[in-house]
Amino acid sequence: MTTPVERPLAALAGRPVVALLSGGLDSAVATAMAMQAGAHMTALSVDYGQRHARELEAARALARALRLDRHVVVPLDLRAIGGSALTADIAVPKEGPSPGIPPTYVPARNTLFLSLALALAEATGAQDLLIGVNALDYSGYPDCRPAFVEAFERLAGLATRAGVEGTARFRVHAPLLHLNKAQIVSQGIAAGLDLGLTWSCYDPTPDGRHCGLCDSCRLRRKGFLEAGVPDPTDYARCPTP
Amino acid sequence: MTTPVERPLAALAGRPVVALLSGGLDSAVATAMAMQAGAHMTALSVDYGQRHARELEAARALARALRLDRHVVVPLDLRAIGGSALTADIAVPKEGPSPGIPPTYVPARNTLFLSLALALAEATGAQDLLIGVNALDYSGYPDCRPAFVEAFERLAGLATRAGVEGTARFRVHAPLLHLNKAQIVSQGIAAGLDLGLTWSCYDPTPDGRHCGLCDSCRLRRKGFLEAGVPDPTDYARCPTP
Repeated sequence: MTTPVERPLAALAGRPVVALLSGGLDSAVATAMAMQAGAHMTALSVDYGQRHARELEAARALARALRLDRHVVVPLDLRAIGGSALTADIAVPKEGPSPGIPPTYVPARNTLFLSLALALAEATGAQDLLIGVNALDYSGYPDCRPAFVEAFERLAGLATRAGVEGTARFRVHAPLLHLNKAQIVSQGIAAGLDLGLTWSCYDPTPDGRHCGLCDSCRLRRKGFLEAGVPDPTDYARCPTP
Repeated sequence: MTTPVERPLAALAGRPVVALLSGGLDSAVATAMAMQAGAHMTALSVDYGQRHARELEAARALARALRLDRHVVVPLDLRAIGGSALTADIAVPKEGPSPGIPPTYVPARNTLFLSLALALAEATGAQDLLIGVNALDYSGYPDCRPAFVEAFERLAGLATRAGVEGTARFRVHAPLLHLNKAQIVSQGIAAGLDLGLTWSCYDPTPDGRHCGLCDSCRLRRKGFLEAGVPDPTDYARCPTP
């Protein structure tokens, strides 16, 4: 079986694709890569009550800049469920990444978001889903690992009218799966993406800047640095070296 | 591997369980059965913009009557996605069931709803999910089949912190999987459930009665009849025999 990462995006040329677009760096780069490959893109963003609502504005700006066919924002308030530093009153860590699954993990988030993408794909006749999960994520988040992506793809075939009737074969594309942040930054530049439109910070300052200290800001900064690409981000603070 | 239907509900005694409770007959009976088995029940209902919003009121009434520990209603407006007679401007069939997957199929609905139940379970420390899918559903809806339920259970282990860290083994219980509507009615009576609190109609009349003609009303009426149980439902019309 071909795994999600081994599929060349060139196969998406001329095909309708539903991309999960959070407004962060990874999903924006994955979307820009698929656009460049000639896919007809619908982006799906979820307004899930995330602490960093600024991310959704970034998704909207990206959808306009990339001239996507359609951008659907689904409201799904995960604060009713809680259990994460992003959706409940739990502190976002600022002291740098630590081993294990971080408190910013949102229970079953990618399962939920891929389910929404699957629903939208089935409702609109698309068979290809795109998600920007990557090696850095899946060292910390369980629902970013290749085995998860493959299990979801299998479920998709069983869960849908199109899968059962044999009129569609759903595929989940995860073109960043084995890339680190520096490689993702380089891919974004190669795809012509304005990386300054993306948003990474989990805990923006009151004046709307990247905090500079949360895990996501640290990874972003390191990615630009290691890629040798000027970092367009306005960070409020610098981590102590 | 034990399949969802073969697991005795007695194993749920004293355990926290997250049940999908729609307000319909099936999920109410499954919930009452788990209650009777001694589970500590949290019910999850989804306000998904369904045409038959009356169903949600039924879910609230059932949660009170069954004295569940907790009832969580998650708003998730699937009208943004469409593709179903229940969420878009597509007619609900009234001429009786026809072969194949009906237009009331909501794309990827059970995948979405089980994902929400999984998220709530993980956030609250439960490992057991309960869903009222059954043989009648899965002759028409793809995401009610045993293979779907099993694939979701497999995904759940890969998708979650608890599954990956080995602190939880998520199970999906589908105690009605091989029952028809008459058997479900009988199980509900045996579990002491007031079946008059449940709601089945996809297309209620303006004065808030069961239409009597949609597939769901027809199955409900037939179920009570075949079970030999008085039908408490106020149907607006009768199908021509």
